[in-house]
Amino acid sequence: MMTPLMSASAAQLAATRVMARCDALAEISESATGLTRVYLSPEHLRANTRVGEWMQAAGMRVWQDEVGNICGRYEGTEPGAQALLLGSHLDTVRNAGRYDGMLGVLSAIETVQWLHDQQLRLPLAIEIIGFGDEEGTRFGITLLGSRGICGTWPQGWLEQQDAAGISVAQALQDAGLNGTTIAQAAREVSSIKAYLELHIEQGPCLEQEDLALGVVTAINGARRLNCTFIGEAGHAGTVPMSHRKDALAAAAEWMLYIEQTTQQQGPQLVATVGTLSCAPGAVNVIPGEVQLSLDIRGPQDDPLAQLLSTLLAQGEIIAQRRGVHFAAAEYYGIAATACDPDLQRALGQAVEQVQGRTLALPSGAGHDAIAIAERWPVGMLFVRNHRGISHHPDESVQPADVACGVQAYLQAVSALAQA
Amino acid sequence: MMTPLMSASAAQLAATRVMARCDALAEISESATGLTRVYLSPEHLRANTRVGEWMQAAGMRVWQDEVGNICGRYEGTEPGAQALLLGSHLDTVRNAGRYDGMLGVLSAIETVQWLHDQQLRLPLAIEIIGFGDEEGTRFGITLLGSRGICGTWPQGWLEQQDAAGISVAQALQDAGLNGTTIAQAAREVSSIKAYLELHIEQGPCLEQEDLALGVVTAINGARRLNCTFIGEAGHAGTVPMSHRKDALAAAAEWMLYIEQTTQQQGPQLVATVGTLSCAPGAVNVIPGEVQLSLDIRGPQDDPLAQLLSTLLAQGEIIAQRRGVHFAAAEYYGIAATACDPDLQRALGQAVEQVQGRTLALPSGAGHDAIAIAERWPVGMLFVRNHRGISHHPDESVQPADVACGVQAYLQAVSALAQA
Repeated sequence: MMTPLMSASAAQLAATRVMARCDALAEISESATGLTRVYLSPEHLRANTRVGEWMQAAGMRVWQDEVGNICGRYEGTEPGAQALLLGSHLDTVRNAGRYDGMLGVLSAIETVQWLHDQQLRLPLAIEIIGFGDEEGTRFGITLLGSRGICGTWPQGWLEQQDAAGISVAQALQDAGLNGTTIAQAAREVSSIKAYLELHIEQGPCLEQEDLALGVVTAINGARRLNCTFIGEAGHAGTVPMSHRKDALAAAAEWMLYIEQTTQQQGPQLVATVGTLSCAPGAVNVIPGEVQLSLDIRGPQDDPLAQLLSTLLAQGEIIAQRRGVHFAAAEYYGIAATACDPDLQRALGQAVEQVQGRTLALPSGAGHDAIAIAERWPVGMLFVRNHRGISHHPDESVQPADVACGVQAYLQAVSALAQA
Repeated sequence: MMTPLMSASAAQLAATRVMARCDALAEISESATGLTRVYLSPEHLRANTRVGEWMQAAGMRVWQDEVGNICGRYEGTEPGAQALLLGSHLDTVRNAGRYDGMLGVLSAIETVQWLHDQQLRLPLAIEIIGFGDEEGTRFGITLLGSRGICGTWPQGWLEQQDAAGISVAQALQDAGLNGTTIAQAAREVSSIKAYLELHIEQGPCLEQEDLALGVVTAINGARRLNCTFIGEAGHAGTVPMSHRKDALAAAAEWMLYIEQTTQQQGPQLVATVGTLSCAPGAVNVIPGEVQLSLDIRGPQDDPLAQLLSTLLAQGEIIAQRRGVHFAAAEYYGIAATACDPDLQRALGQAVEQVQGRTLALPSGAGHDAIAIAERWPVGMLFVRNHRGISHHPDESVQPADVACGVQAYLQAVSALAQA
């Protein structure tokens, strides 16, 4: 049985509601102006309550789990059926936009709302989770909500403290939860079939392709390094060009190589030098030392590792030719998260049905799906985001795109929940 | 009449005395450790007294002029003859080396000492000046000593204050001088034939050529600019390489061009990017704005201006190709000071006689000769300086090089004072 396509007018209605609810949640902030809502804060609990009410109105059974995620379940044809899980997060960065996370939770509710309105049940149950922490704003550790349902909180997370010295354990207790029972948030692997997440793109690709929706192939892996060129400081007036060991000139040559090589190795790899400082840092002194960061990302681990080793080898070659010293230390690395091919296919078909064609693209930013992918297949649907601006009050999406998103999301959910 | 060459043993003795006197002056410091001696300080006056004693011992008449320079005159064959002026400065930067400035004054005294010992007088008188301020350490204005004898103190210098709020006028008074009579320090143009200065190189060229001495062709002109590339900040993970407007990548391309082009345009031009900062300056954000400095120098004004305009044009080309904005504002410029060809020839012949060959090189750093050149022809003799390290306690010269320096200096002085 194929579920009938949601009508354009129903999708518009749903989108209008989603936009209004994003606005309503944006009011629930710790700050009088701007949006900041962090894990286990009073605002988090208030947002959970509102979202829970909306889930309930969509015909779902609602509960808050042991790590503070708000959860809802819409039963399938048979009670107790395996569930298709839809989710995203309800926490924010400081001075955030109103769509990052929330759009996915609220769009998911609209898919269930439509089924409920049509009095339709599918072979699989539909569950929705609004995760309590994805951004890591409060405790500096991320994905607490999604790692909660996976049962993968590492040792020591309960002792992590926020800026005020409040531990996660204490914050759980203050929120009426209990640090000793967090393991009960972990879901049985067999109870869930797959995980889908709708999210704003946080990048410019859909806008540049003039598309409302795209399907994520993978969440990029990332590597971060602190790099150094050490040459020799010297008088800017008295040391001839041919005798210099200019650390900044070496870094400039390497930065240009990074940009060119990354671009050559494929459109999905990115490399960024985001910070650079040079010492001694005087207008009339040749820089003796340069510190710079390197952040590289890509949807597959092997090409990423290959790019990194090419870049580092060239850093060394440049340094040797110039008689300076080069060093690089990796301080952060996260593997790429591949999206499940079957889920990509189902999402792609739904997107084609809605907007004529689909676009496969990697996610440059991290998402709850990273944690979930350790237990269940994951798939992600991206919605166009104006100029790619995110983590900023100017974050924006168009209601018409949200309507397409809800349509496609429902289409994919219906297809996948048949099995 | 050619003056006979100073013997090697006499030169060694003179060099030993110069080194010992450099050490003695290095003890006259405002700080218990390290050497700092600033204009019109008690240490300045003590140094003047010591140097005056050494001048007197060399048979000179000694006085302190109205701006605090210590002056000595060794009469020529006829009393009241025009003078050949030798000089350098006795003030220092903070935590200075002991040769920058002082070596030139003390070597000059040795040339007169030798004439005095030999009971020789030349057609021209020899005058020596130890200038009171070249570095500008105390008041942030430079060349007060040499501009004093030129009569080119600008309006307002008397009101300039040091870090403690003491004006130049007050400091003069505290030193027993008088701000109202500084114009009397100005020397009659006709009373001086030419100016010579011996100085450490403050660069690595002589060391790399394995030479003790070299002759300065010009004191480099310099231009300093604050430059900016403005692109577009963005998420390091979500903006594809092809869509970026990375201000730092643009700056890197320009810096590499600056280095290559300056090197191609001749060995005497130098260009330095000594400071660079990028905003927002986060490892995971594409730099939206880069501020960097450009310092370019060369011994001739026209090629320097040409280089600058080539570099700025390319900055614009790079910016336009990348869709970013480039701007550059010059905030400091000083014209090149050419050394007099006749003086260069006389110094070059003397250097050849002492070390077999000579080397002509520009001075990357500024010197008193810049001010003097507004009134009289100037010539400069450079002495090898280990690794070019200057303005630092590690500044060092070899006694053997100083011996060569005194020999060549005397040779040139004798030749020039015949006229």
